[in-house]
Amino acid sequence: MTEINPEEVLARFEELSVLESEFEDVELQIIRKSDALHAPLFQQRAAVIAKIPHFWALVFEQSPPEVDNYILPSDSQVFADCLETLEVSRFEMHMANGSPRSFSIKFGFSENSYFEDKLLEKKFWYRKAMDGDEWQGLVSEPVKIHWKKGRDLTGGLTDAAYALYEARKKLLAKSNGNAKSIETSLPEYKVLAKMIEQGEDASNSFFAWFGFVSSWRWVSAEESEQANKLEKERMEKRKRGEKVEDEAIDEDDQDFQEVEVFPQGDELATIIAEDMWPSAIKYFKQAHEADDDDGSDLEIEDFDEEDDSDGEIDIRGLVGKGQKSKGSSESPPPKKQRKN
Amino acid sequence: MTEINPEEVLARFEELSVLESEFEDVELQIIRKSDALHAPLFQQRAAVIAKIPHFWALVFEQSPPEVDNYILPSDSQVFADCLETLEVSRFEMHMANGSPRSFSIKFGFSENSYFEDKLLEKKFWYRKAMDGDEWQGLVSEPVKIHWKKGRDLTGGLTDAAYALYEARKKLLAKSNGNAKSIETSLPEYKVLAKMIEQGEDASNSFFAWFGFVSSWRWVSAEESEQANKLEKERMEKRKRGEKVEDEAIDEDDQDFQEVEVFPQGDELATIIAEDMWPSAIKYFKQAHEADDDDGSDLEIEDFDEEDDSDGEIDIRGLVGKGQKSKGSSESPPPKKQRKN
Repeated sequence: MTEINPEEVLARFEELSVLESEFEDVELQIIRKSDALHAPLFQQRAAVIAKIPHFWALVFEQSPPEVDNYILPSDSQVFADCLETLEVSRFEMHMANGSPRSFSIKFGFSENSYFEDKLLEKKFWYRKAMDGDEWQGLVSEPVKIHWKKGRDLTGGLTDAAYALYEARKKLLAKSNGNAKSIETSLPEYKVLAKMIEQGEDASNSFFAWFGFVSSWRWVSAEESEQANKLEKERMEKRKRGEKVEDEAIDEDDQDFQEVEVFPQGDELATIIAEDMWPSAIKYFKQAHEADDDDGSDLEIEDFDEEDDSDGEIDIRGLVGKGQKSKGSSESPPPKKQRKN
Repeated sequence: MTEINPEEVLARFEELSVLESEFEDVELQIIRKSDALHAPLFQQRAAVIAKIPHFWALVFEQSPPEVDNYILPSDSQVFADCLETLEVSRFEMHMANGSPRSFSIKFGFSENSYFEDKLLEKKFWYRKAMDGDEWQGLVSEPVKIHWKKGRDLTGGLTDAAYALYEARKKLLAKSNGNAKSIETSLPEYKVLAKMIEQGEDASNSFFAWFGFVSSWRWVSAEESEQANKLEKERMEKRKRGEKVEDEAIDEDDQDFQEVEVFPQGDELATIIAEDMWPSAIKYFKQAHEADDDDGSDLEIEDFDEEDDSDGEIDIRGLVGKGQKSKGSSESPPPKKQRKN
């Protein structure tokens, strides 16, 4: 039996923590570099894509399972009908207290029968929480979708999430930010919690994702800035070899997920932003390769605008093409990928 | 019904292909940049890890499911007993015809009862195939493991894969590279194919991965160089707006996978190289966090060297720690990750 000195173990952990923070600095440098190198290519790509009808509908249809699993036939129908552009941008890249890990996903739509919006932008802020637990991750705000009458694919979820978010903002403004514990007494809270509880087994529309807030809890810009400052101070101490006390961990009993309409919203956003969007050409080609064998011409049908949510919809069927097939999102590229 | 002109579609595909090749150039630049920025940190990390017993065994135990699924209890036992170092390097980074996507994974072992080797190095070359199909991906060579008597965890698979590879090399040398079709008549081919067929349902040891060759077929450095040259010429033509003929696709009927001992070997290698290895500190901390609650001291047992493959082994149990728990390999980082 070899006993390891606990002091020794702690010292190693401190060293690893310092290294982790240096690795993180390098990651951020690489994200900046990568963004700068890719920017002109994404612009050129957008110009080519604009000439290809249904490009993004086909990409969503060939997307990795982590995305595709959230897309109902009725969502596919919306994409096929009117999704025109998709754009990811790292909007905090050059902001003083911003993070290169924050991003926005913009969906551009043509005139359609579902909602009034021509642009739906979902922003994700990379933030760090205070209060002992060192949570960091992506938080977002519910996006208001102006559904046309009787066309809301989410059964009121996005509206309810938006209403709670607005009510919460007012409550916080009134109470100088100390109202965390009474949020649960808001009528909008009760409405949304009940909707989620009752719809638990129903599979949600992809569009419910626009109502996502956090996979843990909402973290404000101010809190995150304070947490980052504190973390930096602790890291400086570690680098000087000073002992850093563990903060008391303030366990919070509130179940924040009770009012979260799309619990995996951050993971889904990350896969769209870091895989589906940058590799869109690959997925688009896969949609065509799967079709190579049936020899049919490329024809785009005008879609029936009626909601056809009672059956499995194959977008490639809708655009006059063959069987659906799934490619792998893993590198290396799919076996025997064909040149065009 | 909107009809799209097939000529128009082809023109868009050509434009997308040119863009894809420009994206690939940027990816390679980023890999080079990332490698240069990370190198000093990985060196510092290795120095800290050297002071922490069982670091890599704990990392393997907390590895993402895509890795963990391939690790049998008997493999965990080997890692716990004698795995000392793990190192990923991009060994073709500065070679004229090399690819920054090629990498090697080096496993360093202490004296042990399983095999004679102190170092097992598995190399993966990123290569492109000729013959119409545009396959590109990672190929490898079987690594000879000098198993001690009665200790071969793969039941002879690595030996058989290595024997076929050696026989194949001799055959190719004798026939100036034109022997592809008679490879299947080699006695070593038949032996290995039969072993794989018979063992189809048995779950293989992780160590069978050292016998991996390709998820499609072996591609030589010469072939890859030729294919890259041809691809470059075609891309130059495309950029000048010249029409590029599709090459005839020479469908090959041979089932190369008949003698592949570890069909997902390239995917496993990629996840080790691009996730588990760079994020090792995160996985190591997860192993400790899962343990935080039981308050036990850190004790390292001397492992019983008997093979204990008849039950589930918990490495953290072996090192005197608590229950096994799985973290997520997805970003953002796990919820409520604790600072140390």
